[in-house]
Amino acid sequence: MPQPTFTDLDGLRALCLSPLPCDAAAMRHIADREALLTKPPGSLGRLEELTRWLGEWQHRSEPRLDHVQCIVFAGNHGVVAQGVSAWPAEVTALMVRNFQTGGAAINQLARVADATLVVLPLEELRPTQDFTLQPAMTEETFLRVVQTGFAAVDPAADLLCLGEMGIGNTTPAAALAAALFGGTGQDWAGPGAGSDDAGMARKVEVIDRGLERHSALLCDPLKAAQCLGGHELAAMMGATLAARMHHIPVLLDGFVCTAAAAALHALHNDGLKHCRVAHCSAEPGHARLSQRLGQKPLLDFGLRLGEGSGAALAVPLLRAALACHLGMHTFAEAGIGG
Amino acid sequence: MPQPTFTDLDGLRALCLSPLPCDAAAMRHIADREALLTKPPGSLGRLEELTRWLGEWQHRSEPRLDHVQCIVFAGNHGVVAQGVSAWPAEVTALMVRNFQTGGAAINQLARVADATLVVLPLEELRPTQDFTLQPAMTEETFLRVVQTGFAAVDPAADLLCLGEMGIGNTTPAAALAAALFGGTGQDWAGPGAGSDDAGMARKVEVIDRGLERHSALLCDPLKAAQCLGGHELAAMMGATLAARMHHIPVLLDGFVCTAAAAALHALHNDGLKHCRVAHCSAEPGHARLSQRLGQKPLLDFGLRLGEGSGAALAVPLLRAALACHLGMHTFAEAGIGG
Repeated sequence: MPQPTFTDLDGLRALCLSPLPCDAAAMRHIADREALLTKPPGSLGRLEELTRWLGEWQHRSEPRLDHVQCIVFAGNHGVVAQGVSAWPAEVTALMVRNFQTGGAAINQLARVADATLVVLPLEELRPTQDFTLQPAMTEETFLRVVQTGFAAVDPAADLLCLGEMGIGNTTPAAALAAALFGGTGQDWAGPGAGSDDAGMARKVEVIDRGLERHSALLCDPLKAAQCLGGHELAAMMGATLAARMHHIPVLLDGFVCTAAAAALHALHNDGLKHCRVAHCSAEPGHARLSQRLGQKPLLDFGLRLGEGSGAALAVPLLRAALACHLGMHTFAEAGIGG
Repeated sequence: MPQPTFTDLDGLRALCLSPLPCDAAAMRHIADREALLTKPPGSLGRLEELTRWLGEWQHRSEPRLDHVQCIVFAGNHGVVAQGVSAWPAEVTALMVRNFQTGGAAINQLARVADATLVVLPLEELRPTQDFTLQPAMTEETFLRVVQTGFAAVDPAADLLCLGEMGIGNTTPAAALAAALFGGTGQDWAGPGAGSDDAGMARKVEVIDRGLERHSALLCDPLKAAQCLGGHELAAMMGATLAARMHHIPVLLDGFVCTAAAAALHALHNDGLKHCRVAHCSAEPGHARLSQRLGQKPLLDFGLRLGEGSGAALAVPLLRAALACHLGMHTFAEAGIGG
């Protein structure tokens, strides 16, 4: 598939809306085999559903996880000037360096998941514009970053784990969630990486100001992502779209990642069918957001770190699902009469 | 530690009640290091708690999971004659063979978990007595099987996963849960490996008859386990006790496994502090049982298979917890100022 170029929002929108048949024959093949395996029908619960999902979106009757790609996009946010984060913006670059030298949580979790980790700082970590004053990104910047995210996905990957790093980015995520699903700052703001009560009050007020300033444009999910989002959010949206085009199932991470991808759902009800929310973040908006997307997160471990940590943590569960489906004997092979 | 011999219930009871200090220094060491790692404090959620738990019970400030042992005990049940199972008792032996030839779910899951799988059919798979007529086991048989379970645990293991196979064994498990925590057959019976409404009604009635017949003895958790339990349940209790003596943390599996271990909790409030319920079974009594034990299962994937499947499935989550704790850089190492 040639790499599409996004020169305007309408071209991107058309791609987001393009039909994407899943592979019903692969699903049927998987369900047929599952029924023959040495266990009471349905007794592997969600593992069975995950195998069908992998096959459906990989277009393979024998799904595989030989190449799991984990991409962490990093960006900075103009709105941090409003005092919405407990940490200074410089920490984004320091954490990118930490990812690059193997010292962060995601490095360890990607190793346990046997995933290839790609770390991509965006726009040289220059911040977006402060969305209380103007759109976070120009249309041109937004499209460029979506394209970067799209191009970062390895078309040969069997699974994509998405994550992010960006001091202050739970604020644009909450603003975007409010724009896409309704509600105010109060409904979607949370403590992020450790805001106190005063910090929380500032976040709520900043989000509401952003929603107010851009209210005329927010009925369009792509304009909402451009005006209220951030570089790493736009890149995650682009990567999620690319995975859909390349038949790659996606594990979404926490609140920021899910809010970024949610624009695709807002554009089209089936826009995130190839995704599973891997872990329910302790950030309170995430449970609500997952519910709006009709998703039940695979794990609920109280993580609130980002970095793709929740997504990577869930990869061994998918490996377990496949190992059972592909490795178990059938009743006939085991000599157990039907 | 020499292998204890259980010659009477009082000797076994004394061992169950013997104090077992956990390693507070190891826990403190782990908490101290955790606070220095490159993440907001607490942001790895339950992964942090699991690392402390592993260290506390392994008595190691750097916990490890080099040798994970998974034991599946198998037994048959006299009460199956009452029509409490949708499957014939012969399937227990056929499934043991399936475990031994690598074809069952637990074989695949143990491989993904990098665990050593031990399969132990008990009493040559002769059934227990029908507990509606007499105690499921004599005291002698009960003690012998507890001993077998105790001896099956490798003292050098870093983690123990427990599981079982036994056609009909959700009935003794439900009866034992009712004896230990109160309630009737209605409160604790579930569909097991696929009972229909008529089968469920028989299970409820059979459990109530068992509770009635042995009512005079059920205030003693060990007598309850002897009269209402089964070989694989008694062995799992013995193995859980052995793990406690050998400083080995335990992942409990589903309803039957948790009910078997629960006798240790009924004897002493701290009896299962070295255990975590790995997965909340779809068997309805399991959520209630976990709650009674003060446990929140690590996973909720709708499995209802037994075999140790839920326990093995959770092992990579513990590996992830350790990988983060041991592998992450501190803020100082990463050059990020406090």
